[in-house]
Amino acid sequence: MKITAIHEKTASIASPIANAYIDFSKMTCSVVAVVTDVIRDGKPVVGYGFNSNGRYGQGALMRDRFIDRVMEADPDTLVDEQNDNLDPFAIWDTLMKNEKPGGHGERSVAVGTIDMAVWDAVAKIAGVPLWRLLADRYRDGDADDSVWVYAAGGYYYPGKDHAKLQDEMKGYLDLGYEVVKMKIGGVPLADDLKRIEAVIDVVGDGKNLAVDANGRFDLDTTLAYGEAMKPYNLFWYEEAGDPLDYEIQARL
Amino acid sequence: MKITAIHEKTASIASPIANAYIDFSKMTCSVVAVVTDVIRDGKPVVGYGFNSNGRYGQGALMRDRFIDRVMEADPDTLVDEQNDNLDPFAIWDTLMKNEKPGGHGERSVAVGTIDMAVWDAVAKIAGVPLWRLLADRYRDGDADDSVWVYAAGGYYYPGKDHAKLQDEMKGYLDLGYEVVKMKIGGVPLADDLKRIEAVIDVVGDGKNLAVDANGRFDLDTTLAYGEAMKPYNLFWYEEAGDPLDYEIQARL
Repeated sequence: MKITAIHEKTASIASPIANAYIDFSKMTCSVVAVVTDVIRDGKPVVGYGFNSNGRYGQGALMRDRFIDRVMEADPDTLVDEQNDNLDPFAIWDTLMKNEKPGGHGERSVAVGTIDMAVWDAVAKIAGVPLWRLLADRYRDGDADDSVWVYAAGGYYYPGKDHAKLQDEMKGYLDLGYEVVKMKIGGVPLADDLKRIEAVIDVVGDGKNLAVDANGRFDLDTTLAYGEAMKPYNLFWYEEAGDPLDYEIQARL
Repeated sequence: MKITAIHEKTASIASPIANAYIDFSKMTCSVVAVVTDVIRDGKPVVGYGFNSNGRYGQGALMRDRFIDRVMEADPDTLVDEQNDNLDPFAIWDTLMKNEKPGGHGERSVAVGTIDMAVWDAVAKIAGVPLWRLLADRYRDGDADDSVWVYAAGGYYYPGKDHAKLQDEMKGYLDLGYEVVKMKIGGVPLADDLKRIEAVIDVVGDGKNLAVDANGRFDLDTTLAYGEAMKPYNLFWYEEAGDPLDYEIQARL
């Protein structure tokens, strides 16, 4: 059993939206296919992965370093004999060979996206959904019947007024979501408070609304927003300041 | 005044050396040239930069995202009118446009190497060494006459015994270095202690020797090495554990 190819394609996911920190006018995303020599239904099993928006596709890094490490490794070292499957942990170790510790930036996107595709292949080789495979292997078969989700939106974009923001949020409720998230920090505090109140009018209560500043705020702004939003009793207040600014995190 | 081109070339700096975490058998390094339209001695001023070993060259990232941002920006926004020079801070902001905060990995190499080349160009445009320019701009002209340096070596490589390690360190002393650094963590503690003692025999005193584990150790090993090395009174003990393992840093 072996991986016969790893393909990456960088897709544009450009859009006119913006959060408090970045716009998405040139955003890209990597789509990865891990091809195996295992045949199911007459075709090779292929695992797929993709990365989230915000940090761009990382195909160049995959081709520079990561794909070759897997393809040049002895295939026998990447096999999980016990389960007659690929070994995602051995593949992870191979991907991270000769990588300095710390400084996980683009690398975590490149490695994580390949890892996602590997796990997809592992589940397909086993012939079960990945949640079932994980529950069987690591949780004595115990799996949750449902998973909590929320709708992340409320970006800034040209011409988006309160009515359009409310329409967007109504759309999420119509799809069955109870909790929604919106971006803050792209306009002054007073304007953001009006946006927040407009969304609360739609979702009924602050506890159904999370906000995300995407790391934009300095300490004073972090705390000013926190104070101002306190009465709304929001679901959460996400990434107020730079994630590496420990003073902000601690004070918040 | 403007930047007319930014070139990157990825050079192999492969070697058989290893530290406790990685080997350098496929190591690369980026060399960057920032070309300007400023003419000195009949030729365009070109600033050069390069990155340190360990995190690989980042030409692919530069071409994916960073070089284009600078070349597509209005050149007038990148000029420091007051000094009739390029503005390295404006160029930095342009490089980091639409980059999420945190997660500085490969990106810091790509941006930092271009930034180094930009500062080299700025000094050449001003017609002074960079240390003089920085002292004049930010320290009222006050510059140090000398800078403390040490020789970083003592890697592991095949066939390297104590005699060869000592020869390497003698070579640094012959060059005028007083403090040297060696790698630890690539062999068991008892063997490393013998290597350390062999080097102290050459440099005369533990205070002339720094050691670097390159993030290899877990908490127990970190503390075991710390205890065992205490009698040597070494110059420093560098990067014992993973740089993001705050428990290790705090306990150490």
